[in-house]
Amino acid sequence: MTGPVQSIERAAAILRLLAGGPRRLGLGEVAASLGLAKGTAHGILRTLQHVDFVEQDAATGKYQLGAALLHLGTSYLDVNELRSRSLNWADALAARSGEAVRLGTPLEGSVLIVHHVFRPDDSFQTLDVGSLLPLHASSLGKVLLAYGTATIESGKQSGLEAYTRHTLVDREQLNRALAEVRELGWASEIQEMSMGEAGLAAPIRGHGGLVVGAIGLSGPVERICDNQGRPRPILVTLIREAARTISRDLGAARW
Amino acid sequence: MTGPVQSIERAAAILRLLAGGPRRLGLGEVAASLGLAKGTAHGILRTLQHVDFVEQDAATGKYQLGAALLHLGTSYLDVNELRSRSLNWADALAARSGEAVRLGTPLEGSVLIVHHVFRPDDSFQTLDVGSLLPLHASSLGKVLLAYGTATIESGKQSGLEAYTRHTLVDREQLNRALAEVRELGWASEIQEMSMGEAGLAAPIRGHGGLVVGAIGLSGPVERICDNQGRPRPILVTLIREAARTISRDLGAARW
Repeated sequence: MTGPVQSIERAAAILRLLAGGPRRLGLGEVAASLGLAKGTAHGILRTLQHVDFVEQDAATGKYQLGAALLHLGTSYLDVNELRSRSLNWADALAARSGEAVRLGTPLEGSVLIVHHVFRPDDSFQTLDVGSLLPLHASSLGKVLLAYGTATIESGKQSGLEAYTRHTLVDREQLNRALAEVRELGWASEIQEMSMGEAGLAAPIRGHGGLVVGAIGLSGPVERICDNQGRPRPILVTLIREAARTISRDLGAARW
Repeated sequence: MTGPVQSIERAAAILRLLAGGPRRLGLGEVAASLGLAKGTAHGILRTLQHVDFVEQDAATGKYQLGAALLHLGTSYLDVNELRSRSLNWADALAARSGEAVRLGTPLEGSVLIVHHVFRPDDSFQTLDVGSLLPLHASSLGKVLLAYGTATIESGKQSGLEAYTRHTLVDREQLNRALAEVRELGWASEIQEMSMGEAGLAAPIRGHGGLVVGAIGLSGPVERICDNQGRPRPILVTLIREAARTISRDLGAARW
């Protein structure tokens, strides 16, 4: 058995560092952030530059992510079965519900958006594909947490970030909400990530019945919820039907 | 001076391999394709899997690209200055011309599409961001070749792929076409990539006047060209103006 290759792990850590925060970093900043000697960091950065994973700004000498990653990222989308099996159903769900539809899968303690159908109106919307959402403050994330498909990173156990005054920041409160998700078979998020916005999501199961992702609707809270502030039953029905259909396409047994 | 780190180069080669061809490969196929011992390939694949750059299919044991690449790829788009400076002008160009607009930058002997504005009608179109186009058979690629921003890989010197009977597959013919691009300041591609389709492109210059990318229009040949089969002058004017404006935004001197 071979162990992990240290230089590849370090290269991945540098790419992750450049994908967060200020996104253009000097050699000294990269080395210091990862606790590496400058010579080590330089060798890795030069190699990453050579394979177009990193670019160096000619004027400042700072490093940023490179073009090859974009091609690899979209190639990932092409091969993602959850996404390809969901494309038509996500379109149909957006058309029937009149709301934006997003598909999420777990990545490093967050939800990665792998597909996004705009709300079918002429409003200005930006594509969320490739974006990360917090697990505890999104309906997609709550589904992934409830079914054990994703877990909150141990570093975050001490405190969950409060995005609004409705965000579930208390672990006990969150655990009760996740138990309810399992009970109901769907999750909601009402102004927990952003005031005025709400979302609903249901689990997508793959072969063997394991939850492999989630599909969700999101939009203004007054469209997602009724006058009593509860998720509209018709939207819940639509999203659960879409999730079930995709699951069957992915080879899950009927349930 | 440190040399390139071999294991990182090999990891990049594995990712590139998974992004091409069948996209799901077994350990033996990966090792054989790259001329690596199975144990070496396995150590790299396991590390890539550990950092979510690669996923292993539970049923078949085959490897495919992983979710972390999608997030890195879209993070590259956020930091790409050529793209961010072009967004509004690309929208305006699509609105004024009535055609689809794409922005290209060189990657590994191809054109990488970093932005795509759909033709402003209700026709079905798929997003090309992250796709690669051939240099010699696209208007974007001809611009990058003409100004030395991209070069055809030495492995391809022997033969350029013929996509249609109009593709410039002869090096001498291509060189004459590139000299004309430099003379005119813009490039055209008429049914050279796909019958019935045509494109026009102009260079985008950055700081110091170097060509850093290209912006292009594309669509049905009868919309891009006039009755004599020549690019419509109004479209050429619109695309050159857009390219000049973006170049000035990027810090190029007026020319």
